[in-house]
Amino acid sequence: MKIGIVGGTGDIGEGMAMRLSQMHEVRLGSRDLSKAHEASQECRLQVEGRGLPCSLGGCSNQEAVNFGDVVVLAIPFRHLVGTVESLSGLEGKIVISPINPMEKREFFVYAPPEEGSAAVLVQRLLPGSRVVAAFNVIAANRWKAIDEELDYAVPICGDDAGAKQVVLELIRTVPGLKGYDAGPLATACMVECITPLLLNVARYNRMHDVGIQFR
Amino acid sequence: MKIGIVGGTGDIGEGMAMRLSQMHEVRLGSRDLSKAHEASQECRLQVEGRGLPCSLGGCSNQEAVNFGDVVVLAIPFRHLVGTVESLSGLEGKIVISPINPMEKREFFVYAPPEEGSAAVLVQRLLPGSRVVAAFNVIAANRWKAIDEELDYAVPICGDDAGAKQVVLELIRTVPGLKGYDAGPLATACMVECITPLLLNVARYNRMHDVGIQFR
Repeated sequence: MKIGIVGGTGDIGEGMAMRLSQMHEVRLGSRDLSKAHEASQECRLQVEGRGLPCSLGGCSNQEAVNFGDVVVLAIPFRHLVGTVESLSGLEGKIVISPINPMEKREFFVYAPPEEGSAAVLVQRLLPGSRVVAAFNVIAANRWKAIDEELDYAVPICGDDAGAKQVVLELIRTVPGLKGYDAGPLATACMVECITPLLLNVARYNRMHDVGIQFR
Repeated sequence: MKIGIVGGTGDIGEGMAMRLSQMHEVRLGSRDLSKAHEASQECRLQVEGRGLPCSLGGCSNQEAVNFGDVVVLAIPFRHLVGTVESLSGLEGKIVISPINPMEKREFFVYAPPEEGSAAVLVQRLLPGSRVVAAFNVIAANRWKAIDEELDYAVPICGDDAGAKQVVLELIRTVPGLKGYDAGPLATACMVECITPLLLNVARYNRMHDVGIQFR
């Protein structure tokens, strides 16, 4: 699978790049080309240093879009609209939103846009794209701890059945992850709000990088 | 612990009664006294028929309130306001809300009241009570399958630290359940919306009575 990661120099982007580049062709995009090259080189060192295969390169966000059959928007919610509006050529592509809009007060609260969720907003901004909310619930530090299996559930939401099948297939390629169809895009709010809940659970129970499983 | 279950003749109420009456004194309340007696007798047969201890009796909802140090509102959201307004004497008591307001369309969606969550609404209706959202995520069928351990996470929310400690202690008495402080009552929406998500996951993945674990 050819995967372009927009915002790939963030923690989530780098972690996903290190995991996914072991079995897929991945381009790690950034607004800053030198940061993209630096981050992708560092990720390659980490992966190849363990004797693992790695197909990864750094590029601009637009080049990551052009490259990917699947494009991951690994960006914070506050950069979502600006970043998406700066890109072109996303029509027909599978666009993964792992974005969780939230606010930090004394605790974390889910703070969706008026569309109801980040994923629905992405679909509104990109009406020709096949948007799937996925990977919302995996903490950046867990992605990056590549010596440890990601033993987690990944609920996904979307309105394009074919796109969801591809994303479930992508999830199956990551050892330990278990994908679940959680319904149409209109239900993405219920997936996005798991992360502020998990952050609160971590905080109030002195845990780290909490994830979920379904059973 | 003395536990009164309001709406105890529903599936959740009967399941909780069968589990909790093995180590606590439980009163199963109903608007309909004969249904309360019938249900509590049936539950006792199930529990005692397995050679397990059982301290359980049927009564009115008001008697369940009077009896309990901890009162569980095991009622559907649509009956919440009417039931709570029909009761008195809840001041100072620990009131557990396992209520998940949701709507069923083609799929389930979280449908909170304008207060933000059922638990916050309960606290507004009962300003003198110590409200804790808990047990939202355990399916009725799992409560009732008393030969199986409930191997699940139970996130709880509340503003009264002492009440939360009592509820966490109550959770610890149920083999398999693991309680987590998920923050103040203002975050209960993020717990209540897990259940419609789990119902969708069950539906779209042909699973039954899905629960969660944190790790």
